[in-house]
Amino acid sequence: MGIQNEKRIKLKRSMACGNKNLITDVPGVTVGHRTIRRADAGIFTGVTAILPRKDNLFRHKLPAAAHVINGFGKSVGLTQVNELGTLETPILLSNTFAVGTCMNALINYMLARNPEIGLTTGTVNPLVLECNDGYLNTIRSMPISEQDAFAALAAASGDFAEGAVGAGTGMNCYSLKGGIGSASRIMDLGGGHYTLGALLLTNFGAFHDLTICGERIGEHTLSLPAEPDKGSVIIVLATDAPLSYRQLLRISRRAQNGLARTGGITGNGSGEIVLAFSTANPVPHFADTPLLQGSFLHEDYMDIPFRAVCECVEESVLSSLLHAEPLVGREKHTRKSLRQILGWSL
Amino acid sequence: MGIQNEKRIKLKRSMACGNKNLITDVPGVTVGHRTIRRADAGIFTGVTAILPRKDNLFRHKLPAAAHVINGFGKSVGLTQVNELGTLETPILLSNTFAVGTCMNALINYMLARNPEIGLTTGTVNPLVLECNDGYLNTIRSMPISEQDAFAALAAASGDFAEGAVGAGTGMNCYSLKGGIGSASRIMDLGGGHYTLGALLLTNFGAFHDLTICGERIGEHTLSLPAEPDKGSVIIVLATDAPLSYRQLLRISRRAQNGLARTGGITGNGSGEIVLAFSTANPVPHFADTPLLQGSFLHEDYMDIPFRAVCECVEESVLSSLLHAEPLVGREKHTRKSLRQILGWSL
Amino acid sequence: MGIQNEKRIKLKRSMACGNKNLITDVPGVTVGHRTIRRADAGIFTGVTAILPRKDNLFRHKLPAAAHVINGFGKSVGLTQVNELGTLETPILLSNTFAVGTCMNALINYMLARNPEIGLTTGTVNPLVLECNDGYLNTIRSMPISEQDAFAALAAASGDFAEGAVGAGTGMNCYSLKGGIGSASRIMDLGGGHYTLGALLLTNFGAFHDLTICGERIGEHTLSLPAEPDKGSVIIVLATDAPLSYRQLLRISRRAQNGLARTGGITGNGSGEIVLAFSTANPVPHFADTPLLQGSFLHEDYMDIPFRAVCECVEESVLSSLLHAEPLVGREKHTRKSLRQILGWSL
Amino acid sequence: MGIQNEKRIKLKRSMACGNKNLITDVPGVTVGHRTIRRADAGIFTGVTAILPRKDNLFRHKLPAAAHVINGFGKSVGLTQVNELGTLETPILLSNTFAVGTCMNALINYMLARNPEIGLTTGTVNPLVLECNDGYLNTIRSMPISEQDAFAALAAASGDFAEGAVGAGTGMNCYSLKGGIGSASRIMDLGGGHYTLGALLLTNFGAFHDLTICGERIGEHTLSLPAEPDKGSVIIVLATDAPLSYRQLLRISRRAQNGLARTGGITGNGSGEIVLAFSTANPVPHFADTPLLQGSFLHEDYMDIPFRAVCECVEESVLSSLLHAEPLVGREKHTRKSLRQILGWSL
Repeated sequence: MGIQNEKRIKLKRSMACGNKNLITDVPGVTVGHRTIRRADAGIFTGVTAILPRKDNLFRHKLPAAAHVINGFGKSVGLTQVNELGTLETPILLSNTFAVGTCMNALINYMLARNPEIGLTTGTVNPLVLECNDGYLNTIRSMPISEQDAFAALAAASGDFAEGAVGAGTGMNCYSLKGGIGSASRIMDLGGGHYTLGALLLTNFGAFHDLTICGERIGEHTLSLPAEPDKGSVIIVLATDAPLSYRQLLRISRRAQNGLARTGGITGNGSGEIVLAFSTANPVPHFADTPLLQGSFLHEDYMDIPFRAVCECVEESVLSSLLHAEPLVGREKHTRKSLRQILGWSL
Repeated sequence: MGIQNEKRIKLKRSMACGNKNLITDVPGVTVGHRTIRRADAGIFTGVTAILPRKDNLFRHKLPAAAHVINGFGKSVGLTQVNELGTLETPILLSNTFAVGTCMNALINYMLARNPEIGLTTGTVNPLVLECNDGYLNTIRSMPISEQDAFAALAAASGDFAEGAVGAGTGMNCYSLKGGIGSASRIMDLGGGHYTLGALLLTNFGAFHDLTICGERIGEHTLSLPAEPDKGSVIIVLATDAPLSYRQLLRISRRAQNGLARTGGITGNGSGEIVLAFSTANPVPHFADTPLLQGSFLHEDYMDIPFRAVCECVEESVLSSLLHAEPLVGREKHTRKSLRQILGWSL
Repeated sequence: MGIQNEKRIKLKRSMACGNKNLITDVPGVTVGHRTIRRADAGIFTGVTAILPRKDNLFRHKLPAAAHVINGFGKSVGLTQVNELGTLETPILLSNTFAVGTCMNALINYMLARNPEIGLTTGTVNPLVLECNDGYLNTIRSMPISEQDAFAALAAASGDFAEGAVGAGTGMNCYSLKGGIGSASRIMDLGGGHYTLGALLLTNFGAFHDLTICGERIGEHTLSLPAEPDKGSVIIVLATDAPLSYRQLLRISRRAQNGLARTGGITGNGSGEIVLAFSTANPVPHFADTPLLQGSFLHEDYMDIPFRAVCECVEESVLSSLLHAEPLVGREKHTRKSLRQILGWSL
Repeated sequence: MGIQNEKRIKLKRSMACGNKNLITDVPGVTVGHRTIRRADAGIFTGVTAILPRKDNLFRHKLPAAAHVINGFGKSVGLTQVNELGTLETPILLSNTFAVGTCMNALINYMLARNPEIGLTTGTVNPLVLECNDGYLNTIRSMPISEQDAFAALAAASGDFAEGAVGAGTGMNCYSLKGGIGSASRIMDLGGGHYTLGALLLTNFGAFHDLTICGERIGEHTLSLPAEPDKGSVIIVLATDAPLSYRQLLRISRRAQNGLARTGGITGNGSGEIVLAFSTANPVPHFADTPLLQGSFLHEDYMDIPFRAVCECVEESVLSSLLHAEPLVGREKHTRKSLRQILGWSL
């Protein structure tokens, strides 16, 4: 539900939030989770699926761009996105060692829906983004199956949970329990109203750096030891504003500002990857005519989506922390929740 | 005039050339030279201006992209082109040490035509591309003035000379006399006809690598000693096909194939820079409305401009060599012409 | 064996070849294949493994860089290579839809050899590069298993076959049967001798563009219809010269020149990816001391590896074509061999 | 002097500052200003020179990397820095329309000290970085001469002023008077102590975003109207730690985190450019031997320079604001100082 009525968080919002304050406020976008918890085996992991569009993405690709803030990560599919400027599959998020299986699942998912792939047309570019949940989860056991990925895809809807769910089940952020966070903003672009939303998989940062609305919480709260800034963060940005590939790349780069507002230094071991897409100006797989018509935002208006990205990314980090419940993971590795640290009720 | 009726050059052209077989076959594009020859002072240099559009480029910018094949060069303006995806001034080509003066000239040229620059709107991004003509020219004397740049701009027309003229006056290519070369192709994109043209400033390569239509001339002709592959090459690509920023970047990368066909290895000391622009979909400086309408080529048709680039770049290198007359430069440094080496009449 | 005594191919070599004229002339590098042929099911595919170093790569990473010539491809692992500048697993080549399974295999291979991965240290970055063999192979059936990847890794040796083997089993190049090709050169760098080798998985190009040693074979030989330039090519470069990450990136970019010499235009649908590594200056996973000592090539010598790359890549394309036997694949899709087209005996 | 004893600024420093808390704490680095104020002509501008090393940089180049956060800028020299990984001239900062003249000055400065440039060796790559001071300064009059650049170079010393001096004379930042700011940190890298310093030319941001040590000053202080986030910022990073080109690129990217801590959104119109260099491992212009020896930081230690960059960049922005005195510029355009806004004595 995003951060809705949490008056104790004094977020400065320069634009209104969408109805749900979630990425799914962007029309057509849905999100589904598959959460895997087997405490006896120390397994706490999962898959989250983002479906950018209700119909067949392969046939109607969406403009997209990928940006690497720090490349210590194993996400796949980014190379083709940046060459062709389009997205042609749903996006799966999961743990680092589940990327191969999620690729296979996504290929099979697309093959089932597009009988011509690999026969009369080319192949398909699966997009799988990841963070390492190995602190809380027994990542070496590689428990995620293709069925788990299919379940996340099938569960996609406009409403979805945040916190320690789906791919976020075993993630930790600023030495606290992290996971899935989301937010959205309504942008007034010359009188037309558009939505921009973010969904983050948060697994980065060290507690002593944690900054909430400008306050360095981590320095004031002495209950956690200093730790290195490890882990990663995946940022997916969606909008129905008609942004070109180049403009999507530009908004992707502002995700770093949003992360920095929460205190992060973009540590050496952190894979920080941004994927942005627009639901406007879809591109048909098969070209009926050589020329496509489109409308694009004049560059003078770009500060509005830039500001929306900064705010949505900062707020999504906080939302992931505020929604995540504490977890005792493998070998009693433990992550408290932000609410526990702040002394707030769950 | 490009290479018109040179039957001794067995070029394989998969598409028809434009009327003049020059970059100025792209409607609206004009080119002007200012050639500076002061033999007594060992000065052989100049300026070439490319005007992508007849009216005020600052007010009506053109989609553009820049690509660095090898960055051992001092061209300016590329950073902003790749951020904003547009070109807002004419393009000047000159020698390495004339870049600052050409920048000043281009700023003054734009200020004179746009009284609001620097006062009520932002600044302007001058585009100046360069090669080092120091082997034949006394480059340390920095003889080029702003007036020379203005003269090149004023001389722009649809007809222009190739070879040892303008910025090409003192350049050398494959250890022969190089300079300005150009070519064009007519592209059939789903029934619509568009033109793609290239203009090169050639100053790269070692003789033993020179390859003409597949034949390694340099190995057969023993009259020149082996030399390192130094120098640089500037490649300007123009088209009236509606290519987006990302597509212009893609065609820019194919210039390397065209250069490689002439034998080059893209040597360490060679600054090889590509700038591509489209005259379609101009972008107004002042936004009347937030959304711009445009049409763009479906990606499936991109092989046609790719092939046109490969052919135009290869042919432009040859055209620069075939048009250039031999030169005895500073301190009797000498470059023969390709025609001399081949035993052809001038 | 590379191209050894093929007098009918008039390659101009400016440097001596290594003993085997293969990438495995670089000391420590080994290559293994797993070839899968099930004619009844229309399955013609496989896996090729490149082991850059005999001992545990995770513990002793090698300097590496990745370059995307054209990003219409699904290779994985490149992002981290370019952030950290190192390679920490063997390299697997296979078909597009086998990438996920090969990732899983490579993760399991590394986990088995490094019990600390995912527990007390971070994860591992598997490198899997691919081309689409779907014209000859029934790629939708996804027949490659983790066992196939393990078999390729286990088969690695200094001697290996070229042509239609391993990952090259079902590939086609310039509308002929393609596959694995390799070549090497000995570089004299100021008196010290070093080896540079290339291994290519060739699956690109249209017949009418095929150029052998400057001659456009495809135009002279009318037995094949014109086809679009589809498919891809993977280029792996290895050297024992002490090149830094930045220098490895620079040599990677020259692979495009080598490909262009064979006639290619780097088509829209072609994923052309280069991975380069050096066996000098290994980087320990666990830092005993904060500073690492190393030696690096002075930039003035870079033209030598640049030239070696151009030659090895061109020659590897030809070697893949000369070694590949013709194949009748799925649904009677057929690719002749270059030798058949040239009228040479197999 | 950096921010020394300003107790009212509650900066959290995780590492000690250098002696002067300036970029010149890095041994060998000096900085000089040339300030130009002609109030009658509305001219308030200047030049700042950074000399990375006392002796001839052309003969002994320093490892360097450039990173573009947002490319709406006209800085020159970055292309070659990123190809060759070295810096070979001092760095000049000035206004946008002075870049050409500063290039000419820097070329002449280098020619005077290196008689072989352009004759027996190649050319030289001048580095000039810029912001647009046109709000306060009559930038169209282009008042900066080569003599001004020489004066800045000649004035270089270990002590230098911050605020509205040199290139910072006419700059404005967060709608206040900006200019030059600097800071430094001492890094403990496995027992060895190294310094990292930053120098910024600040000309970016909108007042309502200004954030000081987490507090959004701009929202609390109602004395200034909302304005768009225009302008730019140049960030120069120096260190004596032995960082490679790739590592210098990595630290450059963390400058964005430091800027974001002060509230910025990296606006559309902001040219945000980072140049980082190391004084360790100098590279000789003329190669006596093919191999250079060097020592490099193990990647596991990179979080220390990353954190130093975040802190130095944030602090340099504040230092530029705290040192800058208010200015009434051209046409009575006015920028108050931060101290005025905060009600602090000058």
